[in-house]
Amino acid sequence: MWAASVFTLYPEMFPGPLGQSMAGTALEKGLWALEAENIRDHGLGRHRAVDDTPAGGGPGMVLRADVLAASLDAGVATDDPRPRLLMSPRGTPLTQQMVRGFSNGPGLVIVCGRFEGVDERVIEGRGLREVSVGDYILSGGEIAALTLLDACVRLLPGVMGKDESGAEESFERGLLEYPHYTRPREWEGRTIPNVLLSGDHAKIARWRRGQAENLTRARRPDLLNKTEEA
Amino acid sequence: MWAASVFTLYPEMFPGPLGQSMAGTALEKGLWALEAENIRDHGLGRHRAVDDTPAGGGPGMVLRADVLAASLDAGVATDDPRPRLLMSPRGTPLTQQMVRGFSNGPGLVIVCGRFEGVDERVIEGRGLREVSVGDYILSGGEIAALTLLDACVRLLPGVMGKDESGAEESFERGLLEYPHYTRPREWEGRTIPNVLLSGDHAKIARWRRGQAENLTRARRPDLLNKTEEA
Repeated sequence: MWAASVFTLYPEMFPGPLGQSMAGTALEKGLWALEAENIRDHGLGRHRAVDDTPAGGGPGMVLRADVLAASLDAGVATDDPRPRLLMSPRGTPLTQQMVRGFSNGPGLVIVCGRFEGVDERVIEGRGLREVSVGDYILSGGEIAALTLLDACVRLLPGVMGKDESGAEESFERGLLEYPHYTRPREWEGRTIPNVLLSGDHAKIARWRRGQAENLTRARRPDLLNKTEEA
Repeated sequence: MWAASVFTLYPEMFPGPLGQSMAGTALEKGLWALEAENIRDHGLGRHRAVDDTPAGGGPGMVLRADVLAASLDAGVATDDPRPRLLMSPRGTPLTQQMVRGFSNGPGLVIVCGRFEGVDERVIEGRGLREVSVGDYILSGGEIAALTLLDACVRLLPGVMGKDESGAEESFERGLLEYPHYTRPREWEGRTIPNVLLSGDHAKIARWRRGQAENLTRARRPDLLNKTEEA
């Protein structure tokens, strides 16, 4: 079974939103598993300290290498085949291709950073791969981990119904999705494009493809360039 | 006070992880406010239907324009100055600059998409601005909304301590953050770079700047190009 182990200072944030809706139903059915390990269980001294001031000065606190390593070593066997990720704005930007790769694997070990950062030596020493969910700063890695897990879990066998699996097809071809319409036929004077009501499936497919291409060209020309390069 | 109104089919996902840690403390202190409105309250008929099959066929279900509009109109005054966003992988990619802009404003109205998509006419008719947290597909907009809110809330006055405010400075200059180190001085044979222990603040600043530039060049040359273009 696809299993995620999350290392965090806020284990109570998990499963959080993943305990509901599609991911939550799948969790209840045993289609995936989730463990949240509290890094603080391996904190030092009476106050279970996990962080200290940055060498060389500067703002914030840095998560200690020894504490995080102790937590990881206690929770993950050395021969555990799962990728070990650190959610971090310095990491490789997450893409749907990476999500698909992770969901095809055995699961994930995810470290959630907090404070100013994580001691660089534990990133190297435990082979953590830094992954970023986007070019913005979060208060910690927890919501980034929820994001990554939600994206992976929906692709696991049995999680989505057959009728729900359309969205990423467009996206994996490097195109934004075409516009959607449903009943009523007219709403506040706005109508559904005639072609969608024509019943001509080839024509509908062409229209949608054209719309997706136009939308992508207008909003995200960078995606088109990526596809042409690939 | 900075206020977020979230329109969702899963209001119980909020505040979720935002009820804890930095955002949660700020919520308790009244430094920001969060309302989650259930779109289904405006669903149609005995089953409170909110979606229907896509015009022109295809997989999935589409959120109805009339239902979402009724929910928005009931919850947001026409003169409400807050930006109205729809979390969607078709949207403008979220950046730290956008986050800063949102956090400097009055708050946000956020619609969380579900199903295959949202009827295009309500996006136009209610002036929803599509925003994407990244190039991957989530099961819905809820975790994307949590992401956006976490990024905004940490920038609100009084939420972060002065000592915690370093991370985005590097990022807003278009650079990934330099490596961090803290005690112990040696861990598993790995040492802290000597320069950080030198006490020479100018030299430390130069080293960090050089590390940030090298890391950005190696991992994210696209960020350097953006800075040069700007």
